[in-house]
Amino acid sequence: MNADVSTRIEKDLLGLREVPTQFYYGIQTLRAIENFDLSASKLAQFPNLIKSLAMVKMACAKANQSLQKLDQHKYEAIEYACSRLIHGEFHQQFPLDMIQGGAGTSTNMNANEVIANIGLEYLGHAKGEYQYLHPNNDVNMSQSTNDVYPTAIRLGLLLSLDDLHAPFRRLIDSLRVKGQEFSHVLKMGRTQLQDAVPMTLGQEFNAFAATLEKDLAKLSSIPYSTLNYMNLGGTAIGTGINTEASYTSLAVTALSKISQKDIQSAPDLIEATSDMGDFVLLSGLLKCTATKLSKIANDLRLLSSGPRAGIQEINLQPRQPGSSIMPGKVNPVIPEALNLACFQIIANDLAVTLAAEAGQLQLNAMEPLIAFKLLESIELLGKALAMFQTHCVEHITANEEYCKAQVENSIGIITALNPYLGYETTTRIAKTANQTGASVLELVRQEHLITDDVLTKILTVENMVQPSSNTMQEKLIA
Amino acid sequence: MNADVSTRIEKDLLGLREVPTQFYYGIQTLRAIENFDLSASKLAQFPNLIKSLAMVKMACAKANQSLQKLDQHKYEAIEYACSRLIHGEFHQQFPLDMIQGGAGTSTNMNANEVIANIGLEYLGHAKGEYQYLHPNNDVNMSQSTNDVYPTAIRLGLLLSLDDLHAPFRRLIDSLRVKGQEFSHVLKMGRTQLQDAVPMTLGQEFNAFAATLEKDLAKLSSIPYSTLNYMNLGGTAIGTGINTEASYTSLAVTALSKISQKDIQSAPDLIEATSDMGDFVLLSGLLKCTATKLSKIANDLRLLSSGPRAGIQEINLQPRQPGSSIMPGKVNPVIPEALNLACFQIIANDLAVTLAAEAGQLQLNAMEPLIAFKLLESIELLGKALAMFQTHCVEHITANEEYCKAQVENSIGIITALNPYLGYETTTRIAKTANQTGASVLELVRQEHLITDDVLTKILTVENMVQPSSNTMQEKLIA
Amino acid sequence: MNADVSTRIEKDLLGLREVPTQFYYGIQTLRAIENFDLSASKLAQFPNLIKSLAMVKMACAKANQSLQKLDQHKYEAIEYACSRLIHGEFHQQFPLDMIQGGAGTSTNMNANEVIANIGLEYLGHAKGEYQYLHPNNDVNMSQSTNDVYPTAIRLGLLLSLDDLHAPFRRLIDSLRVKGQEFSHVLKMGRTQLQDAVPMTLGQEFNAFAATLEKDLAKLSSIPYSTLNYMNLGGTAIGTGINTEASYTSLAVTALSKISQKDIQSAPDLIEATSDMGDFVLLSGLLKCTATKLSKIANDLRLLSSGPRAGIQEINLQPRQPGSSIMPGKVNPVIPEALNLACFQIIANDLAVTLAAEAGQLQLNAMEPLIAFKLLESIELLGKALAMFQTHCVEHITANEEYCKAQVENSIGIITALNPYLGYETTTRIAKTANQTGASVLELVRQEHLITDDVLTKILTVENMVQPSSNTMQEKLIA
Amino acid sequence: MNADVSTRIEKDLLGLREVPTQFYYGIQTLRAIENFDLSASKLAQFPNLIKSLAMVKMACAKANQSLQKLDQHKYEAIEYACSRLIHGEFHQQFPLDMIQGGAGTSTNMNANEVIANIGLEYLGHAKGEYQYLHPNNDVNMSQSTNDVYPTAIRLGLLLSLDDLHAPFRRLIDSLRVKGQEFSHVLKMGRTQLQDAVPMTLGQEFNAFAATLEKDLAKLSSIPYSTLNYMNLGGTAIGTGINTEASYTSLAVTALSKISQKDIQSAPDLIEATSDMGDFVLLSGLLKCTATKLSKIANDLRLLSSGPRAGIQEINLQPRQPGSSIMPGKVNPVIPEALNLACFQIIANDLAVTLAAEAGQLQLNAMEPLIAFKLLESIELLGKALAMFQTHCVEHITANEEYCKAQVENSIGIITALNPYLGYETTTRIAKTANQTGASVLELVRQEHLITDDVLTKILTVENMVQPSSNTMQEKLIA
Repeated sequence: MNADVSTRIEKDLLGLREVPTQFYYGIQTLRAIENFDLSASKLAQFPNLIKSLAMVKMACAKANQSLQKLDQHKYEAIEYACSRLIHGEFHQQFPLDMIQGGAGTSTNMNANEVIANIGLEYLGHAKGEYQYLHPNNDVNMSQSTNDVYPTAIRLGLLLSLDDLHAPFRRLIDSLRVKGQEFSHVLKMGRTQLQDAVPMTLGQEFNAFAATLEKDLAKLSSIPYSTLNYMNLGGTAIGTGINTEASYTSLAVTALSKISQKDIQSAPDLIEATSDMGDFVLLSGLLKCTATKLSKIANDLRLLSSGPRAGIQEINLQPRQPGSSIMPGKVNPVIPEALNLACFQIIANDLAVTLAAEAGQLQLNAMEPLIAFKLLESIELLGKALAMFQTHCVEHITANEEYCKAQVENSIGIITALNPYLGYETTTRIAKTANQTGASVLELVRQEHLITDDVLTKILTVENMVQPSSNTMQEKLIA
Repeated sequence: MNADVSTRIEKDLLGLREVPTQFYYGIQTLRAIENFDLSASKLAQFPNLIKSLAMVKMACAKANQSLQKLDQHKYEAIEYACSRLIHGEFHQQFPLDMIQGGAGTSTNMNANEVIANIGLEYLGHAKGEYQYLHPNNDVNMSQSTNDVYPTAIRLGLLLSLDDLHAPFRRLIDSLRVKGQEFSHVLKMGRTQLQDAVPMTLGQEFNAFAATLEKDLAKLSSIPYSTLNYMNLGGTAIGTGINTEASYTSLAVTALSKISQKDIQSAPDLIEATSDMGDFVLLSGLLKCTATKLSKIANDLRLLSSGPRAGIQEINLQPRQPGSSIMPGKVNPVIPEALNLACFQIIANDLAVTLAAEAGQLQLNAMEPLIAFKLLESIELLGKALAMFQTHCVEHITANEEYCKAQVENSIGIITALNPYLGYETTTRIAKTANQTGASVLELVRQEHLITDDVLTKILTVENMVQPSSNTMQEKLIA
Repeated sequence: MNADVSTRIEKDLLGLREVPTQFYYGIQTLRAIENFDLSASKLAQFPNLIKSLAMVKMACAKANQSLQKLDQHKYEAIEYACSRLIHGEFHQQFPLDMIQGGAGTSTNMNANEVIANIGLEYLGHAKGEYQYLHPNNDVNMSQSTNDVYPTAIRLGLLLSLDDLHAPFRRLIDSLRVKGQEFSHVLKMGRTQLQDAVPMTLGQEFNAFAATLEKDLAKLSSIPYSTLNYMNLGGTAIGTGINTEASYTSLAVTALSKISQKDIQSAPDLIEATSDMGDFVLLSGLLKCTATKLSKIANDLRLLSSGPRAGIQEINLQPRQPGSSIMPGKVNPVIPEALNLACFQIIANDLAVTLAAEAGQLQLNAMEPLIAFKLLESIELLGKALAMFQTHCVEHITANEEYCKAQVENSIGIITALNPYLGYETTTRIAKTANQTGASVLELVRQEHLITDDVLTKILTVENMVQPSSNTMQEKLIA
Repeated sequence: MNADVSTRIEKDLLGLREVPTQFYYGIQTLRAIENFDLSASKLAQFPNLIKSLAMVKMACAKANQSLQKLDQHKYEAIEYACSRLIHGEFHQQFPLDMIQGGAGTSTNMNANEVIANIGLEYLGHAKGEYQYLHPNNDVNMSQSTNDVYPTAIRLGLLLSLDDLHAPFRRLIDSLRVKGQEFSHVLKMGRTQLQDAVPMTLGQEFNAFAATLEKDLAKLSSIPYSTLNYMNLGGTAIGTGINTEASYTSLAVTALSKISQKDIQSAPDLIEATSDMGDFVLLSGLLKCTATKLSKIANDLRLLSSGPRAGIQEINLQPRQPGSSIMPGKVNPVIPEALNLACFQIIANDLAVTLAAEAGQLQLNAMEPLIAFKLLESIELLGKALAMFQTHCVEHITANEEYCKAQVENSIGIITALNPYLGYETTTRIAKTANQTGASVLELVRQEHLITDDVLTKILTVENMVQPSSNTMQEKLIA
């Protein structure tokens, strides 16, 4: 230690060492900082995890106080410290690498030490005077990393999912606005990248909205009824060693109240201690959304391709010059960035899967990676949704005339004549049109296959982009 | 064609060609067979997909009949043919490769052709006399591959999930039986592969059962309330072109009745035509189960490691000689095979993800791979569950005395003394035990830290493997 | 056993059982068949693995004969049996599931038993009279599954890679032919799906060829100088227990001769016994090729999109009718199938990765999955390459006039004026063109920024699709 | 902008905006900062990418100067600015998010702007006076993002791989030291987690070293002969538009000199512009190393399991207290952290794969993610290797007596008697030992199957952990 830095002495299983006085964290956090210098991502960057840890610590203290295992002064000090953390203070005292060994013990001890030292100051003591408030004996009372850490991750994820809701909703709403705005823009639908049959651009955007709505609904329900089952009270391996019988329900009740979430005790605490299934499922949900968003980004890039040698049905707002060499070029940079974010989320799902599979016996030692990647994915998804909505979707415009001309020039409208002329006749006409470049309508007219009047009715927008009214088909055929 | 083979002439967009008379499939299936020779997996190996296709065709025919678009004779012929397929007949007439281009068109046409030709024979005509019953105009009436194929996949997956339920349930039950049988086998729990605190082997097996129960519950509910939303009636791109307004609800109602499932019409048929989200979610669920099973397999292999230089808490039944060189060696071949199956399922999830992300505009052309991999995963999972239950779990025995001796010899039991002696004292004792090889109990006794009587009570199985009764701690401390 | 089936009695560690007389495999194979019923993929479908196993067995027998541990009669019988297998006979005697536990022991014993029984018949004995030629003592002499199985996989992969070479080469050649054929087709290049600057379609196809050539070169070198290092002679764990000092080099030399490959002995047999790195690397190479082929398939699907509302620069040959509802629709089914095959190969890479990571201590018990997935990927890749070449690439035609018109109408050609007019002026013109729909050339001419004569020279094909000759720029600027 | 902040006005395609005077970057970087706020990873955290960008810019300036397209003053200014960047200065001027759309254009423009403004100050001008030194016209002269960005990524990766070499080498050396130190520690080898045959702990550690050596060799050769092929000079799409014929070779030569690497011009610049194959291959190599390291971490965790109810052959140095509840518990936190890092690298490979596959036509717009993930993986790998070596491997000790006792007590030593007693006799003995708990040696002696003298010789360490000398076997048998 630098001689100029004021320090205190702390002690653990491995011996004594100096800790700079200014730090609220202590010896065990220090050791972990030295052990793990791997990534650029630190615990302090994940406020929801710190908040949820504080909520868990507060709940456990409450339970211990109720059981008269923790005296009132200590309880108040712990509660005070946790409140400060929940309000976003002292987060810089969590400098640990998110990639850490130890199954979360370092993170738990980081919280225990910071809470103890904030509490000590509250009680009028100096940091490190653990005889008055001990990180293990008091702050961690009735707890093991193996129950409080998974509990905190679960709660932290729910807090992060709460934050995700608004940008997700706003994007869907923007897509719906566009769906309405483009409801009269007739365009070619395409399957397998080949011209198919007409639709409206509004239908296309509404479908984007609809598919995301399904995922938002899932993300708003499934995790809230799975991740909320906590192994709190299971302590070391789920057997609840060193707790009293009523402790778990007291702690869980307290946590529900503090977090304003429907926290439940897992039915089998041993199972819940090592099980990562709810994390894998959440990761799968996030991945599902990522595949959808990536597909939408791909579609928007396709539909805005051009400006003259592409599909150019829509225009994206220019966000930045597109080329250092090609003048005037503007690129779909926002959908591209969305693609990248989605790929990252899909890859994070693999990291979560690998870590989940690697659990052994009564614990999954790889849980810190699971927490890291899930929190990162949710945060990234939230930012990507907001970027996509405000920098892209809101500003999309349609090339209405161009879209319409493409429909009129298409071979695909022949499909609408199928019920009147039969599959073989229409196939023959389509083939001729394709080979000669002729217009399908022209060919139909040449052969006098159907009267102009009927043809016009068949080819109305209303008839082509939705099921026919029964009466219409009858009339036309009659 | 071989001169000896009797053939008929069929025709499509690309021209004429001979089809051997014996085949119920026709020209379009033949072309697809020639186009796609890629994998060893053929449609005929996936009976649930053929059955679900037949159910969909039957439902559409019913709807068309109700709307008086399909005459009664044709309807009866189609219904007859579909019934035969649903009963498992004619499946060898589906020789297509599961890896196929065309977004399922070949599979749909395979079904259309086989149904038409079975129906033609039923009506007293020869195969190929499509003027009496046409694969496109009649069997595929009001349909597009783009709605019937996704619908059939969804239904086929539900049928396969139905089949999965029983072996899944049986495995859970076997694990519960073992949980009961081993409820008095005291053993060391381990976290991070280090000795932790005691538990019973029964608790360990019950946790296996519990974690799988959670997944069985999810697999029994989530897909049945997501995959059941069909895009039937959307036809080419979801706009429902060439259908009448009431067709969709008629077809969906008929399909519910035929399949005995709660089939619903998707709220947005355009969205539903291209969306793969429900498949990705199902794949995520299967992957979740795979990570759990792989973890359980890993645990059983660890716990049965030995016979003399491992953990050897349990014994797996010898299933086959384990070595071509090492006499007497027996290996955990069943859990190993379970691992492999799980890895395959996890990898299949990636294939599904890649295919889902690759959809473009109004359709996902990669859907055949999604169908293939999901059906394969469910089938593989079912077989792996059955193998694991009957060849492994049922026969597991415990080395009870050895387990007990390990607990008694452990340092981890010191944890139970934590509430009585404090974290620092117990840490000191544990450290000494570790360094000297001494027994923890001996050290505690030497220091007269606690009376023998109390010690004995603390170290009862009941006290160590579950939360204490409140009164006990009070009494002991008092 | 069915009473009508003639059987013989065999014995192993687990006891006696009847084996139908007709089977060349014996009791251990039978047990494995019963243990593992998981996938539809059987050993018999992978002839290169059976051949390589036979080559390894033949090489070991040769080494044992040289060391006078195996007598001449037995040696000849083993050599005879192996030859039959190498020539493709008796492969139906390998009915094992490719997903099997036991780290390959069952596969090895399947080979030992089949070889012993073929050899016994050759020697005039009945199948099962192992006292004359024993599966373990003779056929497996000086061997362990743990050295012969990895060795056979490595050799089998090399044999499969040999088979891959021709279709890979043919595809590249076809792409080169197209590169030549389209060398004068001027078209717009596109970056980020936006019009960029001109190029020729020939350049585009040559780039496809070039990128695959790089991979073919890697696949033709890297595996042949990594997979050829064998752990043969390491026996159970690489220590070479139960072999004589000179055995390894004798066996490796024999295997080189039999296989006509440059087989080497791995420098560290213990490392080589459990290491899967060369398999992971091969899988990575295959995955690399898959990402390239998938990208090429995507490009061809994009370039052939249309026929009227897409990019329509090229035409793919119609391979089958594209739709059951849309007359005349033709889809890019071959590139789509190629995409699916590529996704499968990418997913297989994950299976290989998972299996490789899961190795423990002196062996990787997951090796059967690695063998399965790699052999499957190579086989699939070979078939996909052939399909793509013969059903797609060979028949591609260009819409030359359309491509040219798009270039002339493009804004992107302004880039060529950049060195003459500066980035800011050209940006202004490009912007105006984009907003007004005007022609870039027209705008340049209106402003008299450059003489028509110079403009014409700048915009020649030669100037736009390759670097300028130095003199040209000087002249033009002068 | 805050009124107190001094600003300058800059202009681009989208219009004017104020840029704080203090920033060396300009308007295009500012726009990109606002567009992309996605991840916590910024360009400034990847110094090798900034350095390589500066090297590329310097090389291009040199080529332009040689061709007399860039005047001497401007050249000197650019060279000066690049030198500063290469020396690690001004890296904080690269605040862009690593997850960015635009295919690297923002990163390239960030470099162009920073270099221009450093250069302007060098020339005595104020930042933003681009008429004297222009980011596009001068710094980016003859360049496109599409050639300089891939080139810089390739070079940046080689620089990072250079940095990786030393920690990789040091880890291997440490493992070799342990291999030597433990060369006389006899222990049981294990296959499939079952006791197999004896080996030395030294052999085990040497195998770890050997397997990593193979990867270090590959990482030290393959990327250096693939990533060194640059598309520099290809400009926008590889056609080299706006370059002179000799420019490419001048630029490449300059870059070789500046970087001290063997830089080559890619044979097909169009192919090289969009091809990501070399990145996928590098990612595959990194993933391969990750699977090996993860396996080694798993092995060390297994071998050090205990302290009393595990395998406990080795001891890892305690690095931090292992539990907040279990006194004295110490966990293998360093191998665990290594596992996590490896999982991250494996997941990054998927991100790279997804991004590589998603390239379209003449460019891969997803390249920024590829650069990000590869640079992150290399950095993480380097740190993980160093952590593993210094915090774990160096301090490993062996429980020599315990290891030896396990061998003596094992059934596996029977394998060494196989050549003398035959597979069936030894199998019978092994089975008896297993069932009765008896010692194998005892049983052999009881049956007088072999003399004690011979037995002793067979069971020497030397005989069991390596191939026998030929003479020995003869003698013993004789």
